[in-house]
Amino acid sequence: MEQLQIIKIGGHIIDDEEALFSFLKTFAQIKGKKILVHGGGKIATEVGNKLGIVSEYADGRRITDDDTLNLVTMVYGGLVNKNVVSHAQALGINAIGLTGVDAGLLPAVKRPVKVIDYGWAGDLDAADIPVPAWQLFLANGLVPVVAPLTMDKSGHILNTNADTIASRLSIALSAVYEVTLIFCFEKRGVLRDVDDESSLVKVLDKSIFYSLKQEKKISAGMLPKITNAFDTAGSGVSRVVIGKASELAALIGGRDGTTIKL
Amino acid sequence: MEQLQIIKIGGHIIDDEEALFSFLKTFAQIKGKKILVHGGGKIATEVGNKLGIVSEYADGRRITDDDTLNLVTMVYGGLVNKNVVSHAQALGINAIGLTGVDAGLLPAVKRPVKVIDYGWAGDLDAADIPVPAWQLFLANGLVPVVAPLTMDKSGHILNTNADTIASRLSIALSAVYEVTLIFCFEKRGVLRDVDDESSLVKVLDKSIFYSLKQEKKISAGMLPKITNAFDTAGSGVSRVVIGKASELAALIGGRDGTTIKL
Repeated sequence: MEQLQIIKIGGHIIDDEEALFSFLKTFAQIKGKKILVHGGGKIATEVGNKLGIVSEYADGRRITDDDTLNLVTMVYGGLVNKNVVSHAQALGINAIGLTGVDAGLLPAVKRPVKVIDYGWAGDLDAADIPVPAWQLFLANGLVPVVAPLTMDKSGHILNTNADTIASRLSIALSAVYEVTLIFCFEKRGVLRDVDDESSLVKVLDKSIFYSLKQEKKISAGMLPKITNAFDTAGSGVSRVVIGKASELAALIGGRDGTTIKL
Repeated sequence: MEQLQIIKIGGHIIDDEEALFSFLKTFAQIKGKKILVHGGGKIATEVGNKLGIVSEYADGRRITDDDTLNLVTMVYGGLVNKNVVSHAQALGINAIGLTGVDAGLLPAVKRPVKVIDYGWAGDLDAADIPVPAWQLFLANGLVPVVAPLTMDKSGHILNTNADTIASRLSIALSAVYEVTLIFCFEKRGVLRDVDDESSLVKVLDKSIFYSLKQEKKISAGMLPKITNAFDTAGSGVSRVVIGKASELAALIGGRDGTTIKL
């Protein structure tokens, strides 16, 4: 099977133009098929503040009311996405900005209300993703740059976690490609000591994960990231790596970051 | 040659959700290949006001400084574009939101500074438009929904008039399709008496145009629209029609609107 690299970048890169440009320079060097999934960044909060849209949060997740949905549609789907695409194009990457709304690429469901009503938040299932629609872009040399928006069956836009999109998309596309998924964030990877970058866990299997968890070495913010990474690795994706965006080349080459092992 | 319908809609439809939905219902009925080009609408000005971005205008054209560029990238490329696409998807149209930034679809140049500096405003030439890139979408059943943003060679986003985009795109694609271009606006078409919708000029040739112009029957806002329409009709596009968005079916069927005749 042909290789496909799916890279997810978060807010710390989006918000720092220099870091983004440097990241994209390395991204441009990746040969073959690739997809970039981006998160939101602080810019959505900044624009929201100016517009008087103050979002509520529950468990670290933004509650998406009507105004917040318009905000993220503008900022993620417009400002951030087109800026990433234009920077990529300037580096010779034939990038195309996409959301899950476009071409029905990421069908989702509005998160059911249990204790908390997350509003227009979307959850998606890898089995619902139309693989041929994604292949059309990849087979024709286009590099999808994906903003974290999805759509339900009635055509309503939904705000969706970018890590989740990267994960589900990797699972779906592993039916036709040999997929490597790389989650980029602020740290080198999973660390035994969060303040010591040299304490990198190079290979994380479930037993190491559970012992680190018991020793409270894994922060609350990291837990869903790692659980998500294990789920993805267990669903047909060839390789899942967590690491630093600035070390992208080493992450792809297997020389840095934490590789998830089942 | 296969037929292609290119429809341009402006602000009055974008700003009115009911009118937009009703328009899209008719748009959904159009068989075969089609592209929708949309303008900005008042929403950009409203969002801009809230963000404290007050754009200057020269000759009715917005001067695009850095803040204004971010504003139109957000609003045109994000909010408006994804809302149109999601409404279209809900109606069974396999719409894909695109800007000229994506896949390098609309290469442009920053407007040279003569008397007025329009800032990040882009002008584009039909000959520079990559026809095969557009064909990829059309040949695969996708319906491009195009926001009025283009990109220069250095990867800078440019704000570009939607009428101009619709016109240049029609000219470029007439190399491979039999293109009908329909400009939708508030009126039934070119009117002999601007206050009387029954005074429609059904066929506008240059001699009628010049005599109407001499009689001052054509408003300042209409002049560039009509000049643009004549240019387009003279450059290989099969049919150019100006009319009312609410009458889209009749415009396509040739039963309403003003048809431009060379």
